[in-house]
Amino acid sequence: MTPPLDGLRVIEGSAFVAAPSGGMTLAQLGADVIRFDQIGGGLDARRWPLTDGGASLYWAGLNKGKRSVTADVRSEAGRSIVRRLVTAPGDDAGILVTNLAPRWLDYEQLRTHRPDLIMVVLRGSPDGSIAVDYTVNAAAGYPLVTGTADDVVNHVLPAWDVVAGTLVATAVLAAERHRTRTGEGALVELSLADVAFATAGHLGHVAEVVVNDDDRPRYGNYLYGSFGKDFVTVDGHRVMVTALTPRQWAALVAATGSEAAMAELETELGVDLTDEGARFAARERIAEILAAWCAVRPLDEVGAAFDAHRVCWGPYRSFRGLVEEDPRVDPERNPMWARVEQPGIGTYPAPGSPLSFSSLPRVPVTPAPRLGADTDDVLAELLDLDAADLAALRSAGTI
Amino acid sequence: MTPPLDGLRVIEGSAFVAAPSGGMTLAQLGADVIRFDQIGGGLDARRWPLTDGGASLYWAGLNKGKRSVTADVRSEAGRSIVRRLVTAPGDDAGILVTNLAPRWLDYEQLRTHRPDLIMVVLRGSPDGSIAVDYTVNAAAGYPLVTGTADDVVNHVLPAWDVVAGTLVATAVLAAERHRTRTGEGALVELSLADVAFATAGHLGHVAEVVVNDDDRPRYGNYLYGSFGKDFVTVDGHRVMVTALTPRQWAALVAATGSEAAMAELETELGVDLTDEGARFAARERIAEILAAWCAVRPLDEVGAAFDAHRVCWGPYRSFRGLVEEDPRVDPERNPMWARVEQPGIGTYPAPGSPLSFSSLPRVPVTPAPRLGADTDDVLAELLDLDAADLAALRSAGTI
Repeated sequence: MTPPLDGLRVIEGSAFVAAPSGGMTLAQLGADVIRFDQIGGGLDARRWPLTDGGASLYWAGLNKGKRSVTADVRSEAGRSIVRRLVTAPGDDAGILVTNLAPRWLDYEQLRTHRPDLIMVVLRGSPDGSIAVDYTVNAAAGYPLVTGTADDVVNHVLPAWDVVAGTLVATAVLAAERHRTRTGEGALVELSLADVAFATAGHLGHVAEVVVNDDDRPRYGNYLYGSFGKDFVTVDGHRVMVTALTPRQWAALVAATGSEAAMAELETELGVDLTDEGARFAARERIAEILAAWCAVRPLDEVGAAFDAHRVCWGPYRSFRGLVEEDPRVDPERNPMWARVEQPGIGTYPAPGSPLSFSSLPRVPVTPAPRLGADTDDVLAELLDLDAADLAALRSAGTI
Repeated sequence: MTPPLDGLRVIEGSAFVAAPSGGMTLAQLGADVIRFDQIGGGLDARRWPLTDGGASLYWAGLNKGKRSVTADVRSEAGRSIVRRLVTAPGDDAGILVTNLAPRWLDYEQLRTHRPDLIMVVLRGSPDGSIAVDYTVNAAAGYPLVTGTADDVVNHVLPAWDVVAGTLVATAVLAAERHRTRTGEGALVELSLADVAFATAGHLGHVAEVVVNDDDRPRYGNYLYGSFGKDFVTVDGHRVMVTALTPRQWAALVAATGSEAAMAELETELGVDLTDEGARFAARERIAEILAAWCAVRPLDEVGAAFDAHRVCWGPYRSFRGLVEEDPRVDPERNPMWARVEQPGIGTYPAPGSPLSFSSLPRVPVTPAPRLGADTDDVLAELLDLDAADLAALRSAGTI
């Protein structure tokens, strides 16, 4: 049994989050993903967080399961090596993923060597202006409606990078499907800004402005359009609770024994709280009732009551709490995770693909390569170079 | 020329954001995606935002380009119709995407009718407990380090839903690639919690706890590990500025004419601010200098100086500002957008796929279907039912 993307070979020229996570998404499903970098490392080689020894936990996290090739891509000789890797033969090869897209990796030029090339290029902005996750997010509207203060609140999760990375993987597979059926390669382009603004469109924010002439205000930690909010327990823990559906609402009312209080509220307001919009309109009154219930109970009791009624809830956790308390992050209990020995860093739990194929083995979670560790192997395998060729390239400073 | 996913047929049984956006990702690349719902609509049929007339802008946004079938899936007759749609013949068909996964849509049972079935099932949590984006996010660690107040801050963008939706599309294409090569179908399972916690792992948060024994604190609107922050202009606008790379840093220093001030700061602190970690450590001092520069200039002047030097920056916008001011959301200027006439709602700009295939036509942006609009066509086409059959099903209340 082979993994789902067995045989697929992707060359990745990347930095930061989005393109590397796109390549890693494919690698963790069994593709052979070969990332190339300048000798000594690219722009993200020392991106924080770092270990005390100066190794990048960020780089290690975003390049798991790949092979690493380094070359002097500032020289024509090094660029030539990379172009040959990209256009090397192989039925399921000839695929380049990049967010760097330097002039020396030109699609039309590369196609002269491999007409069925697939090249996926991620940019910041569709108009060529410089943009990264954080600047795109500012323009997308979300920071102005996040939190409770009259201020902008940046996200900490680089959400657009993560979405774009997954979409890079989708693009590779869509283009490869097309190539399998037609023999044709493709240049596929996307941008962080298009990904972000399309999402704002899909989620109704654009229509809300144009159709309803509304500019959605900030609602703090309230979930929009239905009921959801954070609450504090007597022992100082915080929980997030949602009642999106009639069933979730019934469970929450039952778990907190607030049938009478909610019925009274319905009578007072003349509404039916099984309607999501009515719950949203009455959110502050509902929250008062639930906050009072939570405020006199410890987390254990709150959680037990919620679980007994299948309420949709979760505790807030710090990253430490996530690691130390959540069984879903325990490699002994969740096969997505494995304890991986990362060269130069140590052993710690690392995640594989969130996709589990019932009939196929999970691709084992493997560490990120040491920078350049696979240069010789890859050049021997793909370009048919022998030991003498490699020695010459190395002494010339090309690899 | 046909779109990249031409011929692919997917049945979708879904609600809310993630699974519908997964199906839409495929539809907007040319797949035939048929969403089924209970007659009258599923759990998300009236999800906010609504128009004055009660139509859901949310539903319209997340179901563009699909076909809609309704059946009484509370009855065995209606369930049978759906099962037959899922297992109907067709080389590129036999694919089901669902976040509902009711017992009557059992993979093993469906496989008896179509052994090569691909079924992608999205859940809240890998352990079967109830979870939605908002409860998963609470546990993932991000709300505790977002913003500046000593409080939890929920995200407004349902980021995990959006990432999971894109990953659903990846899963379909990976499984279909495997099927094309081996003839084997697959049950592919994923969960919002696994998607979120894997991301926290990929981005180094888990390693930071385990390897460095650190629990990252909140840094407000500062970008972690390099330099990035929001600034206010004299006319009250806010801008996000980043200097992730040496080039971005040089551009920012040059645009603000702060060479001397930064050199002085470097001397005083004994650091080299071309190093990203040094920038992060000195972030508050750097921000003072830049804040003073922005505070005496209007947005026009700030933006012009930044653009002239290719600084990586962006203005903060409300959703209204995004729609009214950003040319990247203007259908006249960005082909990803089109003015779409959405039945029952009106005409407004709607986004297509962020993926642009150079050699293939863009899939036109089309509206979401009216609920159930394609029931007759789909049942005639896939199940070979004739007008009399359809009339009988309709009078029985099955469709």
